[in-house]
Amino acid sequence: MITFSLLGAGRIGRVHANNVCRHPAARLSLIYDVDESAARSLADKVGAGVASSPDQIFQDGQVDAVIIGTPAETHASFVEDAARAGKAIFCEKPIDKDLVRTRQCLDIVKAHGVTLFLAFQRRFDPSFAALRRRLLEGEVGTPEMLFLTSRDPAPPPIEFVRRSGGLFRDMMIHDFDMAQWLLGAQPTKVFAVGGCFASPAIRELGFADTAVVTMTLESGVIANINCAMRATYGYDQRVEVHGSQGMLAIGNRYETSVRKFNQDGIGHELPLHFFIERYAQAYINELDYFIECLNTGRQPSPNGEDGFRSLQLAEAAHRSWLSGRPIELSEVSTR
Amino acid sequence: MITFSLLGAGRIGRVHANNVCRHPAARLSLIYDVDESAARSLADKVGAGVASSPDQIFQDGQVDAVIIGTPAETHASFVEDAARAGKAIFCEKPIDKDLVRTRQCLDIVKAHGVTLFLAFQRRFDPSFAALRRRLLEGEVGTPEMLFLTSRDPAPPPIEFVRRSGGLFRDMMIHDFDMAQWLLGAQPTKVFAVGGCFASPAIRELGFADTAVVTMTLESGVIANINCAMRATYGYDQRVEVHGSQGMLAIGNRYETSVRKFNQDGIGHELPLHFFIERYAQAYINELDYFIECLNTGRQPSPNGEDGFRSLQLAEAAHRSWLSGRPIELSEVSTR
Amino acid sequence: MITFSLLGAGRIGRVHANNVCRHPAARLSLIYDVDESAARSLADKVGAGVASSPDQIFQDGQVDAVIIGTPAETHASFVEDAARAGKAIFCEKPIDKDLVRTRQCLDIVKAHGVTLFLAFQRRFDPSFAALRRRLLEGEVGTPEMLFLTSRDPAPPPIEFVRRSGGLFRDMMIHDFDMAQWLLGAQPTKVFAVGGCFASPAIRELGFADTAVVTMTLESGVIANINCAMRATYGYDQRVEVHGSQGMLAIGNRYETSVRKFNQDGIGHELPLHFFIERYAQAYINELDYFIECLNTGRQPSPNGEDGFRSLQLAEAAHRSWLSGRPIELSEVSTR
Amino acid sequence: MITFSLLGAGRIGRVHANNVCRHPAARLSLIYDVDESAARSLADKVGAGVASSPDQIFQDGQVDAVIIGTPAETHASFVEDAARAGKAIFCEKPIDKDLVRTRQCLDIVKAHGVTLFLAFQRRFDPSFAALRRRLLEGEVGTPEMLFLTSRDPAPPPIEFVRRSGGLFRDMMIHDFDMAQWLLGAQPTKVFAVGGCFASPAIRELGFADTAVVTMTLESGVIANINCAMRATYGYDQRVEVHGSQGMLAIGNRYETSVRKFNQDGIGHELPLHFFIERYAQAYINELDYFIECLNTGRQPSPNGEDGFRSLQLAEAAHRSWLSGRPIELSEVSTR
Repeated sequence: MITFSLLGAGRIGRVHANNVCRHPAARLSLIYDVDESAARSLADKVGAGVASSPDQIFQDGQVDAVIIGTPAETHASFVEDAARAGKAIFCEKPIDKDLVRTRQCLDIVKAHGVTLFLAFQRRFDPSFAALRRRLLEGEVGTPEMLFLTSRDPAPPPIEFVRRSGGLFRDMMIHDFDMAQWLLGAQPTKVFAVGGCFASPAIRELGFADTAVVTMTLESGVIANINCAMRATYGYDQRVEVHGSQGMLAIGNRYETSVRKFNQDGIGHELPLHFFIERYAQAYINELDYFIECLNTGRQPSPNGEDGFRSLQLAEAAHRSWLSGRPIELSEVSTR
Repeated sequence: MITFSLLGAGRIGRVHANNVCRHPAARLSLIYDVDESAARSLADKVGAGVASSPDQIFQDGQVDAVIIGTPAETHASFVEDAARAGKAIFCEKPIDKDLVRTRQCLDIVKAHGVTLFLAFQRRFDPSFAALRRRLLEGEVGTPEMLFLTSRDPAPPPIEFVRRSGGLFRDMMIHDFDMAQWLLGAQPTKVFAVGGCFASPAIRELGFADTAVVTMTLESGVIANINCAMRATYGYDQRVEVHGSQGMLAIGNRYETSVRKFNQDGIGHELPLHFFIERYAQAYINELDYFIECLNTGRQPSPNGEDGFRSLQLAEAAHRSWLSGRPIELSEVSTR
Repeated sequence: MITFSLLGAGRIGRVHANNVCRHPAARLSLIYDVDESAARSLADKVGAGVASSPDQIFQDGQVDAVIIGTPAETHASFVEDAARAGKAIFCEKPIDKDLVRTRQCLDIVKAHGVTLFLAFQRRFDPSFAALRRRLLEGEVGTPEMLFLTSRDPAPPPIEFVRRSGGLFRDMMIHDFDMAQWLLGAQPTKVFAVGGCFASPAIRELGFADTAVVTMTLESGVIANINCAMRATYGYDQRVEVHGSQGMLAIGNRYETSVRKFNQDGIGHELPLHFFIERYAQAYINELDYFIECLNTGRQPSPNGEDGFRSLQLAEAAHRSWLSGRPIELSEVSTR
Repeated sequence: MITFSLLGAGRIGRVHANNVCRHPAARLSLIYDVDESAARSLADKVGAGVASSPDQIFQDGQVDAVIIGTPAETHASFVEDAARAGKAIFCEKPIDKDLVRTRQCLDIVKAHGVTLFLAFQRRFDPSFAALRRRLLEGEVGTPEMLFLTSRDPAPPPIEFVRRSGGLFRDMMIHDFDMAQWLLGAQPTKVFAVGGCFASPAIRELGFADTAVVTMTLESGVIANINCAMRATYGYDQRVEVHGSQGMLAIGNRYETSVRKFNQDGIGHELPLHFFIERYAQAYINELDYFIECLNTGRQPSPNGEDGFRSLQLAEAAHRSWLSGRPIELSEVSTR
């Protein structure tokens, strides 16, 4: 039985709390949130206690693992605190929006030898996982081109965007992880174009809300990502991998399979609304996997290095967008 | 070069006239219609002459083949006239709505030894033809069940319905032909239920506008047909054949492949509007086939006997619907 | 907090046990199975106790509700035992395969005034539920025709079939429930054709493994059901409802949305394998609903009467299949 | 009645010859091909004569219009010859693979005031045309991003590639035209990545066989094109246009709508094989349109300038691919 505690009782924290509770080999002991009433409400619902501070969790000898689902700017220091306390860490992306800060944090994690899982949940979605498995099995030969479409139904609150580091570092980072995971290598050159179509406020922050990034790998393989913070038709999560012997593609997912036919045409409902709904199974699977890793002593993947490499790509894309020219990964600060 | 003449300058006559004209080995000499201006208009468009009477066509030694596209109640006597004149005959379904009259006509055709092609055009549609070919090649093993969906966008004019013999004899007859053609045998027992949902006027004529027919073959194979004279979402033409090793299915066809995604959902246009559009290629193919039969001396299929057997099923279905009990094909007048 | 106990630790029992355990307002106290090791194994997994007899459960004052997931021939007497013990009852279909026995059982339930929920789970599937809601909201006008397709991937063990009462009473009963639920009324006339295509052993038992049933309602509405115990392409669960202003349709559901494109064509995986997978969400939803009913004092639906009416249709279909003629519902034994 | 003559009796010449012949207001008088037997064979089939030289066509006072379907390197001089002879010109793309040569040719066309239609046939495809119409009608608001997928089933003969100017100038030029036509403006900045995955021989010629091009318009709108000379799953022609209020998308087209379901999954046939099949209707429509332009005195579109602007983009993409940096359109030789 693994004892978890949770930092952050927001949307994603609630998902993880429920998933811990339903796991036969896990329990949730404490929940912390800066908004204590949010922590209390969730704790009551899942039968956990409320921590009055993060430290109460880190210093609790009963706690085996912490789930970090707080705002992104707090991740790095909570990861460090947890590492120093010897806890296994399940952290929402990103470690930090800054590469140097991220590396610093990962060094501390390394020094303390704790387990760090970075929750790029898409890897645990049944469709994404099946596509990768089939790709590795050679169903379509050698990969040549990858296309990722990631569009959110609507931009987040502007205050969130301000602190997020922008579309490339906060949103497209999922696609950078996906690209590396599917292709098995990190791209070496990145070119980005972008614009602000959805929100003038985002433009004023100096960020894009829409972008297309083209990357090439050392091998010549091409990866193309398009993201937008607003898609009126909902959450759009698609993949195409073209190989020497065919293509594998992932389409969107829907709550029901009902279609309507009348004089206006044939109508189908929108895709599952957003990440909470679309990746509900992935959130379950990633937690099951993390627990299995803890129980077997296996190091989980993706880990902090995966997060670092995706952030490098995000940084390169951001710079390319600002400068209007392709960026070599070697230009981006490193280790 | 085969010289055709055409009886009937209506909707389907115009289709055939154009298809004759575009065939490199055929020409259209004369067109007759009770409405001479309709004949004239079409003749001018395709560069043909106008016949002042059907007899002018039948007695014209230059004419090799006649296409009969006049109202259904005139088919039988025109077929007989053409047979007596020694012309090859391309006749729209049905020969007649009455079994006895149909048999009488076929006897005359037989006596004169002329070629008679009964234009069940669906057999020449690329999708239907491919499904049958693949079925015969054993792709899904031995057929066990067949489902046919045939729904028209809107009922025909009530005057047309009055003379047509009703849904079973006029509309579902296409599906009876399809069932026999796909399954390779004539069903022996027929059960029909029906109703009038689209038009009270059709009900007053004593006809159904909507029906489901279940038929069984000697072999035990089951065929199920559903028809409606009104489908607000357009012309619905689908097939499912279940075999011992799988299913083959045909979906609807569309003018374009455009889809629209917005906050209201995902929308697709309606199927091709009606038979003229849906079976445009089938009309071309059946004429090409008929000409090839004439040129090679091969007897075309479907022929008058196919029409007769489909009419038997229609007759059985009609009686079943009226009586509320299944009808054995042997109960239906025959030869 | 509602305390459940479970009779039957087989496939469906395990599903319900897990779903009780994950519900925040429910607990599972005891599990009984004739195979005590099966009960023990499940009990250990979900943290419940093992009952040495059904009576131990019925006589346990802590137990609020029992879930009956044992073989069908035991349902009726367990329901009666539970009713006499004053427990709320969550029973898998059917009450019994015999109409008289079912009525007898329901009389006892009624006499003891306990809550009885009959678990036709399809009603709780998101797609089926959405279709019905939209139908009731009038999206496609007045219903006119209903088509249900229900095909299992493979026949059950022959011993199961022998005791089941056959395809109509055991398998198609789900579709009879669905038809009544969607159309809001019980059909009055039933015609069935059937055959044995999948298994000669089923034929020897005097049962069909494949059937098409056509039913009509007093109102004239037509319902058509096709079932097969074997579909090589997997579990096929589809619906079409045609109304005066359009059609609503439900397609199959898939584990992933991956498609493969290569020189052999475009390939998609099979539907979710069988009812456990296809209706996983429905099993969760129906239990949530049952618990909500218990907590609010609302009588759940579907109940025993729904089961009885579906069994009447099954009985009529079975007799129609045997006799080759349509059966009026009034011919079937009643109350 | 418009009298056409045809230069080039190859694959595309045969399509146009048949389409002229089936048009009620057009006739085909003469066909020229360097391979006289090819000209003869086609002429016999469509009832035309054979020209012993291009000049015989240009000097024939009966000829109103010429269709140029010869190899691309001959287009410019045939267009000039036709212009000098005062013929209306229907020319396959490109005018020439070189920008300067193209401009020179267009100047001569302008000087002689003849009609020049450049046959970018996709504009006349029902799906592409419907998408653009709906886009202009504002169905999805203001366009923001465009994605074009164009993949051929297999590379052309290497000798063809050698003379073609490469993927950007020969193949992607269709997509450059499409992008400008759909977005209503010429992109101003072009970035290309590419590779040789299909054919080492193409690599040796210094060309790519696969590429992704990202372009931006003055307005900030983004257009992304991906092309490959080899797609094992066939001819892939798709479009997505994202606007402020939704997305319009075009999928592939298929000869039949047959699907197969068995234990291996659900299978669909490949898209229509290649451009001749996929754009059969577009070839008919563009000729009808050209004839209507001639009859009404309207100037047809696309014209030589459209071809020039697309070639500018191709040139920019080619240079971007070679240099690894984005190219401003102003860097490309112009007028």
